[in-house]
Amino acid sequence: MSGKPRLGVGLIGTGFMGKTHGLAFNLAARAFDLPMRVELAALADIRLDAARAAADRLGFSRATDDWRDLLTDPSVQVIAITTPNALHKEMALAAIAAGRHVYCEKPLAPTLADCREMTDAAERAGLVTQVGFNYLRNPLIALAKDIIDSGEIGEIRSVRAIHAEDFMADATIPWSWRLDPAGGGGAIADIGSHIVAALRHLVGPVRRVLGQLSTHVAQRPVARGSAETRAVEVDDVARALLDFESGASGSFEANWIATGRHMQHDFEIYGSKGSLAFTQERMNEIRLFKVGEPDVTRGFKTIWSGPAHEPYGAFCVAPGHHIGFNELKAIEVKELVEAIAGGAKPATDFREASEVERVMAAVQRSAAESRWVELD
Amino acid sequence: MSGKPRLGVGLIGTGFMGKTHGLAFNLAARAFDLPMRVELAALADIRLDAARAAADRLGFSRATDDWRDLLTDPSVQVIAITTPNALHKEMALAAIAAGRHVYCEKPLAPTLADCREMTDAAERAGLVTQVGFNYLRNPLIALAKDIIDSGEIGEIRSVRAIHAEDFMADATIPWSWRLDPAGGGGAIADIGSHIVAALRHLVGPVRRVLGQLSTHVAQRPVARGSAETRAVEVDDVARALLDFESGASGSFEANWIATGRHMQHDFEIYGSKGSLAFTQERMNEIRLFKVGEPDVTRGFKTIWSGPAHEPYGAFCVAPGHHIGFNELKAIEVKELVEAIAGGAKPATDFREASEVERVMAAVQRSAAESRWVELD
Amino acid sequence: MSGKPRLGVGLIGTGFMGKTHGLAFNLAARAFDLPMRVELAALADIRLDAARAAADRLGFSRATDDWRDLLTDPSVQVIAITTPNALHKEMALAAIAAGRHVYCEKPLAPTLADCREMTDAAERAGLVTQVGFNYLRNPLIALAKDIIDSGEIGEIRSVRAIHAEDFMADATIPWSWRLDPAGGGGAIADIGSHIVAALRHLVGPVRRVLGQLSTHVAQRPVARGSAETRAVEVDDVARALLDFESGASGSFEANWIATGRHMQHDFEIYGSKGSLAFTQERMNEIRLFKVGEPDVTRGFKTIWSGPAHEPYGAFCVAPGHHIGFNELKAIEVKELVEAIAGGAKPATDFREASEVERVMAAVQRSAAESRWVELD
Amino acid sequence: MSGKPRLGVGLIGTGFMGKTHGLAFNLAARAFDLPMRVELAALADIRLDAARAAADRLGFSRATDDWRDLLTDPSVQVIAITTPNALHKEMALAAIAAGRHVYCEKPLAPTLADCREMTDAAERAGLVTQVGFNYLRNPLIALAKDIIDSGEIGEIRSVRAIHAEDFMADATIPWSWRLDPAGGGGAIADIGSHIVAALRHLVGPVRRVLGQLSTHVAQRPVARGSAETRAVEVDDVARALLDFESGASGSFEANWIATGRHMQHDFEIYGSKGSLAFTQERMNEIRLFKVGEPDVTRGFKTIWSGPAHEPYGAFCVAPGHHIGFNELKAIEVKELVEAIAGGAKPATDFREASEVERVMAAVQRSAAESRWVELD
Repeated sequence: MSGKPRLGVGLIGTGFMGKTHGLAFNLAARAFDLPMRVELAALADIRLDAARAAADRLGFSRATDDWRDLLTDPSVQVIAITTPNALHKEMALAAIAAGRHVYCEKPLAPTLADCREMTDAAERAGLVTQVGFNYLRNPLIALAKDIIDSGEIGEIRSVRAIHAEDFMADATIPWSWRLDPAGGGGAIADIGSHIVAALRHLVGPVRRVLGQLSTHVAQRPVARGSAETRAVEVDDVARALLDFESGASGSFEANWIATGRHMQHDFEIYGSKGSLAFTQERMNEIRLFKVGEPDVTRGFKTIWSGPAHEPYGAFCVAPGHHIGFNELKAIEVKELVEAIAGGAKPATDFREASEVERVMAAVQRSAAESRWVELD
Repeated sequence: MSGKPRLGVGLIGTGFMGKTHGLAFNLAARAFDLPMRVELAALADIRLDAARAAADRLGFSRATDDWRDLLTDPSVQVIAITTPNALHKEMALAAIAAGRHVYCEKPLAPTLADCREMTDAAERAGLVTQVGFNYLRNPLIALAKDIIDSGEIGEIRSVRAIHAEDFMADATIPWSWRLDPAGGGGAIADIGSHIVAALRHLVGPVRRVLGQLSTHVAQRPVARGSAETRAVEVDDVARALLDFESGASGSFEANWIATGRHMQHDFEIYGSKGSLAFTQERMNEIRLFKVGEPDVTRGFKTIWSGPAHEPYGAFCVAPGHHIGFNELKAIEVKELVEAIAGGAKPATDFREASEVERVMAAVQRSAAESRWVELD
Repeated sequence: MSGKPRLGVGLIGTGFMGKTHGLAFNLAARAFDLPMRVELAALADIRLDAARAAADRLGFSRATDDWRDLLTDPSVQVIAITTPNALHKEMALAAIAAGRHVYCEKPLAPTLADCREMTDAAERAGLVTQVGFNYLRNPLIALAKDIIDSGEIGEIRSVRAIHAEDFMADATIPWSWRLDPAGGGGAIADIGSHIVAALRHLVGPVRRVLGQLSTHVAQRPVARGSAETRAVEVDDVARALLDFESGASGSFEANWIATGRHMQHDFEIYGSKGSLAFTQERMNEIRLFKVGEPDVTRGFKTIWSGPAHEPYGAFCVAPGHHIGFNELKAIEVKELVEAIAGGAKPATDFREASEVERVMAAVQRSAAESRWVELD
Repeated sequence: MSGKPRLGVGLIGTGFMGKTHGLAFNLAARAFDLPMRVELAALADIRLDAARAAADRLGFSRATDDWRDLLTDPSVQVIAITTPNALHKEMALAAIAAGRHVYCEKPLAPTLADCREMTDAAERAGLVTQVGFNYLRNPLIALAKDIIDSGEIGEIRSVRAIHAEDFMADATIPWSWRLDPAGGGGAIADIGSHIVAALRHLVGPVRRVLGQLSTHVAQRPVARGSAETRAVEVDDVARALLDFESGASGSFEANWIATGRHMQHDFEIYGSKGSLAFTQERMNEIRLFKVGEPDVTRGFKTIWSGPAHEPYGAFCVAPGHHIGFNELKAIEVKELVEAIAGGAKPATDFREASEVERVMAAVQRSAAESRWVELD
């Protein structure tokens, strides 16, 4: 059919993010005029039946229970990694060694050293990388960035950012890899990266941090329903005070015990000439305030997403119809494919994810040492 | 691969809804465990290049500039019609005559007689039909219906419903088929069906109506930028007072000159034991009030969409991530495919669309005759 | 102290509105630089102890159990009437006959003929009248009126208005004067006047109406807890379709069984160049949309009340602190006092209240006769 | 008239808070059945004409340009101080020495030592004190406190609190006493006390703090319009991470350059069984989430203020009508008067204000020393 070059995709994992990636590659290929023809080549999961079922559903040509098969499959040019955080490094390094581009879920890896090793390997190999920061792909976040970068709301002075959910709020939720300091790492590691990525994306590099890590569910059952408990050593709530290189100051909170909250991924950014407020709870709207209007009609304007906010129009030509989470991931895929085809590298590649990780590591160190930690 | 029966899809049209259907068939096939294997067989558009480009992008096997080709294509079992309203009838009747199931965009046809002819033909042929009422497919609307049908908010007494947009608010928008009483039919015909369908879905059959049709932009340019104008004969705003068979009373408004509104598809439903409020502007939330709580903590509860609201979980396993318009259409496709495979017929099949049309025709008659019009 | 002329106030009634008037006269005298010195001269209630307690609390110089005492009290120049609706006429006519200005709660009287008689008497006597439409006194409603009157949002095309509460939603609430067609008159008479007054204030005179009156609680106990019931003959929900003299069209609903609603006094007004949306549920904010902005940042602006919105500043010099219901009534008193001192007559005097009543009477007639009723 | 004991009030100041106190004493006396008869005895302002005009308007019997006159006026039993922060101490100590109860605006004084001296003096003298924390008097905050104290939302784990306004956002606003470290003290001193008071009121004593003070408008004109500037030495934004004695953790921000915000006095409190969210921007509503409901209908409930929330009913017997800032101050006066009459001492007396100040002083110290500061 089209004369576009072919891009074969290998996917590792069939869980929440595995399926999400599968949907995203499908949707991106249909909604956008991508520079390459995406082909879903192979899907790997440690359970062969799960791999087969997912491959069949999501449209992958073949299934395997050995992710290393993807490394030698000539039909695979990019590998998507959606496994638990602790496995990212080994898989990404192997993919890079095999000359494959890599699309990895966040957080990139449990430690900053790992992130850097992965980043260096990818850059040395000249491969494209993309990391799944989801929310940053929202066309309204692109609008926010345009407004900030254009100077429309002046010099950015202060910012407040939150990523709060409640999936760990119930104290009877048992111990898991998320609670293992080595594998998961608490709220800061698991969800903090989302909000740090947003802050870096919109306000720029962080100069120094002052952090606090709090554990409020001190013990959890070793298994669901078990009377035996195990001490929790990671944070339920992470907070940090921030100074940015630009001179702005701010704070963030990552909280996985925020009872009642599903996706309070919020920020408010205050500049000398205006301000912006966003919450993922209402991801199709953003609020903008600008100085200079008469007092009698000053106020925050609520902007609804629409075709004016690219690439919303690729999903729907009419405003107000709403896009959802799956569209955000499809935009992420679009950026990946365009970069592989020679376009600009993704905003949240491994290097950027390492920078995000560097901020989180600084927060962890600051919390441990009770002092400001510089990021240079 | 799977042993599921195959379902070949033929799509007519490549505009807003043509692309939307294409995305929806793709997404439904990937997100759901459908009882049939969906294959995108053929896509027709009067412009062959548009048909080819869309087929290539959306994954259809072939393209044609003659929609009648689909009627004789043995690989096509269901035909999706996304052309202007006035063309629906001819195409649907031809598809039915050819033994194809039909998925048609709303409104089904400009006149009630046409709708009935189409419905009768489909039912006589024993074919499955589905009509694109989009918003009713929202899992939160399913929740609203469950709450109402269960009696949880008591006997429904009163309802208010709105479908307001502003795509015709600018008086310089030129004359088009939408403004032709024969082809489009004004706000009542073009968007009124959405809100009538919602009212019937949630509150049940309408017993009688008292209608008002208002034209506020009396003249429009014959073409964009033209100084020559033509009188507008259709309504910009349609309103009706309603009595339902159940004893409930209510009102609706369909408005396409509601300056500033993109998708104010709203309803509020008041029962003897509680109430519900929804707006498509925030389609991932619905508000529920229930009597019986102490005054000190009574209030409307805002419920966010999540996996508890089927089939949200097929798109995303985590609550609060949001689905969008494209997921609504994928659910519409799911209902269609399940019905073709022998499941329950779609809630908004041709018969139901005819019933919706019957209400709208009654509103038009009532407005013309300035009296209550009974529906039976 | 000051050389201002004295204005003696006589108040009839000690219920909800009696107390509210008492607070309002006190607050107006303290917050505003009124042209007259307000003195709370006498308070009447049929129960002498209630009159005495209220007079003591609210600062009236004396109490009486005979409201006719106020007519001959030389210290009284204005009489405020807060008794049940059916008593307004007799009291107002007596006050007017005695040469007193009158401040009366809404609705002015149960019938249009009564309203007119009261209006004519007051005008013949050259006395000032004011009617308690509360919500119209909101500084943000004044802003809305300014915006509309200035043409800032263009020609007004359509409007939707609601006044919904739930104080009669519980079917066990017993029969009372409110349910008596002669005395109260149902939702249309009791609360409909609020929303009609708002429509006239903002959009202007109504040309014709098409009305519907619905009764949903058909029987009520004759007394609290009684097993004996009595048929309800008045409306629980009143709705009307409207054409305004200006060419705008619209609708309103008055509903006292809107389960969960305390004060849904809402309107949305759509013009050719913009629109306004207000709800009394958030009375310190109003939303404004204006055309002409780039699509990328178009949206409704939420304006918070502040000193820019006169006379907010008389209550609080800082924006965002919020005024409440009592401030609205104090503004009502301010308008009354200024008119008595020779200023502009109140916007909602007896004549305006009669015009409001005329619309409601037309709605009642329209509902009875199932046809459009013209107002002239 | 009544046999209640008399309480003579002396007020110092005629600015924003002077007028507010005057309105509050009037409103409290009329709305509540207070145990004492409030008499507005004397009003002092350094400008005699201002004092006279305010006395006349607000209903005080006499005016003076020497606040010390109040100390010896036998008709004055309680003195209200609404002057700039730096003057509070001298006036309060003098009032206490003269045996007068004291009602003082916040912050109590610029330094913790001053606060303690004032507190000790008042307690030694056995006098009643009240400090103007306004927002805590909201009946919905009382509801929040009841919900928390009852254990209804479980053990409190985390909290986020904000007090953000924009009255200093414009860099052309000139230097003033607010910017003087000795007199005002920046955002932390001027508005931080509001949010610390709220946190203490609802979550309890703070155990330790980690603070950050940021100055973003580094220079301001020495006078309005002047080209000459002066360095700003106080904070525009103050932030702190917190550990509470209860084990909860949290953060707050005080920000007076939050462009677009008038009164973002917000908090969110997360417990093991539920959560609460409030913003002063919508002071008549509060949101409550409770665990234990089915996933399908879980959500935050929006509770509107009404007579169920004492003492709302003293202002208005109907729910949903809204109270405003002036009612909050009237409730503050009510607490003061009841305490003077022998009732419970005000929740925010001088001792509590000193505790609030202790937290702020700890934040300032922490920011200066870049370390956690313990409070005991």
